[in-house]
Amino acid sequence: MELALNTATVKRQWNLAQAIEGCARHGIRGIDPWRDQVADLGLKKAVSLIRRHGLTVTGLCRGGFFTAPNWRDENLRAVEEAHELGAQCLVLVVGGLVPGSKDLFASRERVKEGIAAVLPEAIKAGVPLAIEPLHPMLAADRACINTLEQALDLCDLLGEGVGVAVDVYHVWWDPKLEQQIKRAGKRILAYHVCDWLVPTRDLLNDRGMMGDGVIDLPLIRSWVEAAGYAGFQEVEIFSELDWWRRDPDEVLRTCKERVSQI
Amino acid sequence: MELALNTATVKRQWNLAQAIEGCARHGIRGIDPWRDQVADLGLKKAVSLIRRHGLTVTGLCRGGFFTAPNWRDENLRAVEEAHELGAQCLVLVVGGLVPGSKDLFASRERVKEGIAAVLPEAIKAGVPLAIEPLHPMLAADRACINTLEQALDLCDLLGEGVGVAVDVYHVWWDPKLEQQIKRAGKRILAYHVCDWLVPTRDLLNDRGMMGDGVIDLPLIRSWVEAAGYAGFQEVEIFSELDWWRRDPDEVLRTCKERVSQI
Repeated sequence: MELALNTATVKRQWNLAQAIEGCARHGIRGIDPWRDQVADLGLKKAVSLIRRHGLTVTGLCRGGFFTAPNWRDENLRAVEEAHELGAQCLVLVVGGLVPGSKDLFASRERVKEGIAAVLPEAIKAGVPLAIEPLHPMLAADRACINTLEQALDLCDLLGEGVGVAVDVYHVWWDPKLEQQIKRAGKRILAYHVCDWLVPTRDLLNDRGMMGDGVIDLPLIRSWVEAAGYAGFQEVEIFSELDWWRRDPDEVLRTCKERVSQI
Repeated sequence: MELALNTATVKRQWNLAQAIEGCARHGIRGIDPWRDQVADLGLKKAVSLIRRHGLTVTGLCRGGFFTAPNWRDENLRAVEEAHELGAQCLVLVVGGLVPGSKDLFASRERVKEGIAAVLPEAIKAGVPLAIEPLHPMLAADRACINTLEQALDLCDLLGEGVGVAVDVYHVWWDPKLEQQIKRAGKRILAYHVCDWLVPTRDLLNDRGMMGDGVIDLPLIRSWVEAAGYAGFQEVEIFSELDWWRRDPDEVLRTCKERVSQI
C-alpha cells in the first residue's frame, strides 16, 4: 500500500500549501486535506497545487455531523469540494447525540436520513461517501456510528454510493473486526493508520505513531488487503503532546519509515 | 431496584468500615467492596461488620486479570473471599493485552482458559462469576472483553456458573445493547450505574453522577428489568476531579436522590 498523509497529522505546524509541498518533497503521493485548510488556501489554489504535484486525493475530511443544524448545506458544499479536488471519497464523521438529547436511536436515525438526503448529489458528483465508525469513546460528541458492523448495516440500507473509512484507531479493539472487514469488501473506501498508546492521556488528541502503541497493524492491514482494498494507507495522527510539537519534516520522515515496517 | 454502593465511589474519603457504616446511616442496603479494602480491614471483620448492619453484598470487586502472571492464585483467593462475604457474584475485570503482546486473540483465549480454570472452585464455593465487558477504550490495559455480545459468547462457551456484570458506563454506546441485554436474561448478575460526561477528561477516573451525563439510564434500566434482573442497581463512580473530592455523606445523599429519579 502506498502512503498518504492526512493533513491533520501536521496541522499545528503546516498550512495546506506547506503540507502539499511537504508530501511532494518526501515522495508521499497521496493526501487527505481537511476542509478548513482548503478554505484557508482557497479551493481553486488547493486543486491547482495538488495537481501540480501530481498527488492523489485519498479523501476529503470531512462531511457528516448530521445532528448539527446546518448539516444539509455543509454536506452539499463538502460534496462539491470533494468533486473539485477529485477526492476518492468524502469522509463522514456522522455526529454524536443531537444536542440536549440522550436518544442515541434518534441520533442514529437522523444520521441515516442525513446521508440519504445528501447521497443523490454525491452520486451525481461522483463522490463516494465514506462512513467512518468512530471509537465508542466518541459516541456522545463526535459520531454515534461506533462499529464497522453498524456502519455496514447502514451501508446495506443506503445502497450504492456509500462505503466505509476504516481507521485502525477506532476499530482495532473490535472482536468482530476481521469478520466485518471481510464483509465490507470493496466498500472500504479509505484505510487510516496510527497507533493506540498505553496510557492514552486524552480522548481526542493523543494518538500514537505507528509502532509506538499496541495495534497489530500488519494483521489488520492483511485483512484489509484480503478484502480487496488496493488504495493508500493514510496516516492520521492527532497528537497534542508529541507529534504536533515536532519538526513536520521529521514527522513525515517518521511516517514513511514506520509505514515501511508494517 | 434497590440502591447499592460500590465502595470505589468514596474510596478516597472512606475505608471499608466507614463505607459500611455510611451505607447503614443512609439506608443503603447493598454494598460491593473492593478486595484491597477488605484486606485492609481484615476479611473476618469485614464479614462481621457487613452482617451486623444487614447489608447485601451485591458483588466483590474484583477477580480477573487473567493476563497477569499470578492470575490463578489471585482468583482462587478472590473466590474464597467472595464466598466468605456471601457476595452475590465475583466481578471479573478480565485483563487487557498480555504484557508486551499486541495479540488480542491470544489475550482473549487466555481469559477464556483462565475463567474455565477457576470456574470449578467458584461453583463449589457457590460464587457466580460475573464477566464485566469494559469500554473499548480500556481494551489494551484493563479488559479485552469489550462488548456484552462478546461476554455472552464467552458465557455460552463456559456454561453454568458464569454470567455478566452490566455497567452502563462501558456499554451505553453499543448499538446492540438492547438485543444483548435481552439475550443475557437471567445471566445478568450485577447492574452498575453512573454517567458518561461530555467532555470526558480522563479514560479511567472521570465518571459522572447519574443525571450529569448523556446516558439514558431509565431506558437501559427498563431493558435490564425486562430481562428479568431483580437485583440492586449499584453506583460505581470513579471521579478524581469531582466526587472523590467531596464530603462522602454528600456523595451518598446525591446517589440516593439521583437513583430515585432514574
